[in-house]
Amino acid sequence: MDTKIINGIRSLAIDMINEAKCGHPGICLGAAPMIYSLFMYHLNFNKDDGTWINRDRFILSAGHGSALLYSTLLYSGYNFDLEDLRKFRKRGSKTPGHPELNTKLGIEMTTGLLGEGLASAVGMAIGEEYLRDILGKELINHYTYVLVSDGDLMEGISYEAASLAGSLKLGRLIVLYDSNNVTLDGKTQGVFDEDVIKRFDSQGWHTDVVANGEDFNSISQAITRAKSVSDKPSIIEVKTIIGIGTSVAGTSEAHGKALSEDDIIRVKEKMNMSRVPFHVSKEAIDFYRDSLDKRISPIYNNWAQTYNAILERNPEKKKILEALEDGIKLNLKNLHINFENNLIEDMRITNSNLMNVISSLSPTFLGGGADIVKSTMTYLEKSGDFKFNNICGKNIHFGVRETSMGAILNGLALSGLKPFGSTFLSFSDFMKPSIRLTAMMNLPVTYIFTHDSIKIGSDGPTHEPIEQLGALRSIPNLTVFRPADVNELVGSWDFIINKKSPVALVIPKEEKGILEGSSIEGTLKGAYVIKREMGRLSGIIISTGSEVETAMQISDELTRKGIMTRVVSVPSKEVFSKQSSEYFLDLFPQGVKIIVLEASNDSSWNEFVYNKRYLLNVNSFGVSGSRKEVLEYMGFDITTLVEKCEKLLK
Amino acid sequence: MDTKIINGIRSLAIDMINEAKCGHPGICLGAAPMIYSLFMYHLNFNKDDGTWINRDRFILSAGHGSALLYSTLLYSGYNFDLEDLRKFRKRGSKTPGHPELNTKLGIEMTTGLLGEGLASAVGMAIGEEYLRDILGKELINHYTYVLVSDGDLMEGISYEAASLAGSLKLGRLIVLYDSNNVTLDGKTQGVFDEDVIKRFDSQGWHTDVVANGEDFNSISQAITRAKSVSDKPSIIEVKTIIGIGTSVAGTSEAHGKALSEDDIIRVKEKMNMSRVPFHVSKEAIDFYRDSLDKRISPIYNNWAQTYNAILERNPEKKKILEALEDGIKLNLKNLHINFENNLIEDMRITNSNLMNVISSLSPTFLGGGADIVKSTMTYLEKSGDFKFNNICGKNIHFGVRETSMGAILNGLALSGLKPFGSTFLSFSDFMKPSIRLTAMMNLPVTYIFTHDSIKIGSDGPTHEPIEQLGALRSIPNLTVFRPADVNELVGSWDFIINKKSPVALVIPKEEKGILEGSSIEGTLKGAYVIKREMGRLSGIIISTGSEVETAMQISDELTRKGIMTRVVSVPSKEVFSKQSSEYFLDLFPQGVKIIVLEASNDSSWNEFVYNKRYLLNVNSFGVSGSRKEVLEYMGFDITTLVEKCEKLLK
Repeated sequence: MDTKIINGIRSLAIDMINEAKCGHPGICLGAAPMIYSLFMYHLNFNKDDGTWINRDRFILSAGHGSALLYSTLLYSGYNFDLEDLRKFRKRGSKTPGHPELNTKLGIEMTTGLLGEGLASAVGMAIGEEYLRDILGKELINHYTYVLVSDGDLMEGISYEAASLAGSLKLGRLIVLYDSNNVTLDGKTQGVFDEDVIKRFDSQGWHTDVVANGEDFNSISQAITRAKSVSDKPSIIEVKTIIGIGTSVAGTSEAHGKALSEDDIIRVKEKMNMSRVPFHVSKEAIDFYRDSLDKRISPIYNNWAQTYNAILERNPEKKKILEALEDGIKLNLKNLHINFENNLIEDMRITNSNLMNVISSLSPTFLGGGADIVKSTMTYLEKSGDFKFNNICGKNIHFGVRETSMGAILNGLALSGLKPFGSTFLSFSDFMKPSIRLTAMMNLPVTYIFTHDSIKIGSDGPTHEPIEQLGALRSIPNLTVFRPADVNELVGSWDFIINKKSPVALVIPKEEKGILEGSSIEGTLKGAYVIKREMGRLSGIIISTGSEVETAMQISDELTRKGIMTRVVSVPSKEVFSKQSSEYFLDLFPQGVKIIVLEASNDSSWNEFVYNKRYLLNVNSFGVSGSRKEVLEYMGFDITTLVEKCEKLLK
Repeated sequence: MDTKIINGIRSLAIDMINEAKCGHPGICLGAAPMIYSLFMYHLNFNKDDGTWINRDRFILSAGHGSALLYSTLLYSGYNFDLEDLRKFRKRGSKTPGHPELNTKLGIEMTTGLLGEGLASAVGMAIGEEYLRDILGKELINHYTYVLVSDGDLMEGISYEAASLAGSLKLGRLIVLYDSNNVTLDGKTQGVFDEDVIKRFDSQGWHTDVVANGEDFNSISQAITRAKSVSDKPSIIEVKTIIGIGTSVAGTSEAHGKALSEDDIIRVKEKMNMSRVPFHVSKEAIDFYRDSLDKRISPIYNNWAQTYNAILERNPEKKKILEALEDGIKLNLKNLHINFENNLIEDMRITNSNLMNVISSLSPTFLGGGADIVKSTMTYLEKSGDFKFNNICGKNIHFGVRETSMGAILNGLALSGLKPFGSTFLSFSDFMKPSIRLTAMMNLPVTYIFTHDSIKIGSDGPTHEPIEQLGALRSIPNLTVFRPADVNELVGSWDFIINKKSPVALVIPKEEKGILEGSSIEGTLKGAYVIKREMGRLSGIIISTGSEVETAMQISDELTRKGIMTRVVSVPSKEVFSKQSSEYFLDLFPQGVKIIVLEASNDSSWNEFVYNKRYLLNVNSFGVSGSRKEVLEYMGFDITTLVEKCEKLLK
């Protein structure tokens, strides 16, 4: 019966791809026994309670095998019908080209960018450990399973994540490696010759090999062994034949396009599948669902009892469970964090203090940095380091691994946590693909980027961000904050904490006082007048973050010269874009010249100005030198800026 | 005497950091014997001929150790004096915070982003193999050496590159690993516990360990052994103590800030260095330079004789040597590539044909893709695959490794070659850090990005680029081309081939005919009128690439409705921005409404329009569906677009 179910799953997947005339049949045929073994004999899930907090996670990192996932989920009783499968790759269907996050349907995350799935699974496994600690192992004790392809393992992001997983000894992470030595362009020979098992062994993983990918029993046994290893993540290399059963089996021809009519007939005959498209054997599916029910129901019911008991008796854990579901709710304004009026300190320190307050009130708030936490200053002082044997630690040391940090944060957020990660703004480039996925999945991840402009000086152009601010702002559904002072920082965090959405917080390596006129309320509108004109308005200077103070100085200078200007601080363009047009006209009366001052080359500011001469920004790479030298060289010193503004407003 | 020289180099580095009050003394102290062993006993270079084509390359991948590099280069006789060292990290000095490409000074590339150096070194090693084949081993037979830190090896990009290097068996790549188990945030324990030697072994590398990083003799012997291995890249793990000799030795305190006065005294005493800052022992430096001269001069002179002989006798090789120095020169217009007027084909195929013509005429033109070359269609048909035992192959299979592909291309370009690399536009995100370095170093790398908009449809949002076009355009010094048809494609390649600068070429997965009015000359101006208005001008539609044809259709529709529009095609915003204001006004007479049509969210177009309603673009993530479904859903179908334009121009 196992074989019949496996082939039934395969059959649906092939029919879907054939119907769509597009897809990846090779993996669907090759990896079906793996996914079947896992779902049938190991994976604990509840089709009717997709968001069950203690479900085992399954991530199809090789997202191009989406048809295999959808057909398995249909078999498993999730809310898919054959019509949904027929609409594979169609607009508005439940079955898009690559899996898109939909927990209720059994799709744990959006995949399709190879490597991202494995890296996020590492985040989920960290999340499981942490939650197991704070909620207790009666409530949290699940596994995280990932199916990866050769391509996943070639990507640097998966290497980084695997290296960290080994160092953290994440025993409940189990990777099934669909090892077929074929990628879209051909054999991996001469391109990817490494001994993968030895590599994972060197990274502190438990390793296992199943020589025959059709042997679902051996796969299941290997999973059982992996589950028994508690101090190492596991990888099981399953040797498969891509497109098995077809005339193009074992070649890249089977990878990325629909099978020929001949091959569909061939494979269906070989595997005793019905030639009728989208046929499901009632006997097979009933047996399968019945088996699942018998295996999983007792586990789920047992868990549900514990859960209800805890909800009733343990208000502290109840609060955590609520925060996992609904997010953190904190009114930062009411926290009465005392900042002295004459406070002048590095904004990274102020930020650190704020984060520590938030952390002390929010068990689900945790994170870390890509090694330079001493510079980004995002350490949670009283919370310890997340480590093997110290899984209550809230500080995750990601290592010098920016690329995977974002994906791991995504995994943490998918566990219900409110994670943050920090590095320098210029290194945000490494994280772009993962930030994009954060935004696409609308996950409550907070990216903290310090060292946010050429003003860092002597580290030179590699470390000086220019285009990064604009790049972040250009990601759909990502909100970027660049606060100018303490008040705007508090406002930014108020937004971050109370919204379940992705945010990038960009802060300088610079001392800042409290600016006269700054406000939390204004920050929450995205933009506001921080300095009113002292007479008849000649122009408005828009500025953000670290440059707002400079804009105010310029405005003072101009006032002395009889040119009255208003300064508008824009801590968040995205938030501001959601305000009414009345508010917009309030800030920017029609017909008044506008200048934008920002140490970036974000050309989206063109929206606000008459022409680009009114953008006082930075359009080339930076240079190494002291702050003063750099600013003068780049024409960004106050004297030059005042001159430029004067000319523009005259 | 060796020790004296090593400590002399250390001493200068410490003095530089002390003078700048900023830098990384730890690596300068710990890794000095490694760099000394290499320069003194192995590295073949000529301080007076920095661009010597057959010099051994040395890349300081751990770019934060710049002070160590500068002091070694000063000792080695490159054009540095003590005054240059005193200006460490100052504006305009030869000694910026991180090394910046300056071949004449012995600085082979800009480093500072960890991992990039090693990955680019893999490119240089590939370049050496290829050039050894086409120029002969009498002319090209050098090694590529890299010094890496723990941080370098944690970065996914270095893993990817190492994996490829092992598969390609790059025998002349030798990595010195400064293994001190410390990063900026502390010990690597619990963060980076992998058995690095075993990992590299699993990747097909020759490995070696030197237990005592002070033992320059053992280091030298290990390098000798590595040089003798011809079918594997080599890594030598040298166990060092970060900040050796100081009170903070072996800790992260020694990593990233200037030493205390006490420690400077302590280490100088311990190592018998002069307490006078910037002191150089004449005896030591003379001995060192003399030794280098004795070792290297015969090698260089011998090579120079061969070189001159070849220049005289072998016009074919002479041509290659010139191309390596000056770049390729080809007038594509004069190639008379015949495109039928009624040609309609996928632009990727047209592009492939063009690239194959260029390749047949240019031995230095080579490249590959990150596995999806069957989709990007950038294969050079007659040129074979670059592989061990087939190093004349021009097609490099990078594997599913976008992240390192860019860095490897940088290495190839630094070898004098004209490399290209291809993948989907949405995956360009993975390559951003390396593309930024391409632009910073002004290297003639061509990035080819296909599948350039939501029109690819069914692969869904992960594969549909939105913000990538704007992101590429925002990189300083990168020229982006998005051609609309064959003529614009030829124009783009004409620019690419005849300029030694970085270009991103963005092409659709779509059939295109030759558009009436398109021109190569116009393309080389960056923008031009592709369709004139049929009467009194009511508006101008700017468009790029795949959407130009749509813009022309819209214009036709509008003409029928009595609204006369001009269509301006902008194949390259960067090239256009360099034209005169007269030319600008020629295209865009003052007072005429402008609409921009582009399937991206590049907000830099705001520069051209009255307000953002005139931007017909795509501001959210895409969806999975057929092309038609996606366009309709996103409001980007022709009917909707015509309606919008009509409203805007009425």
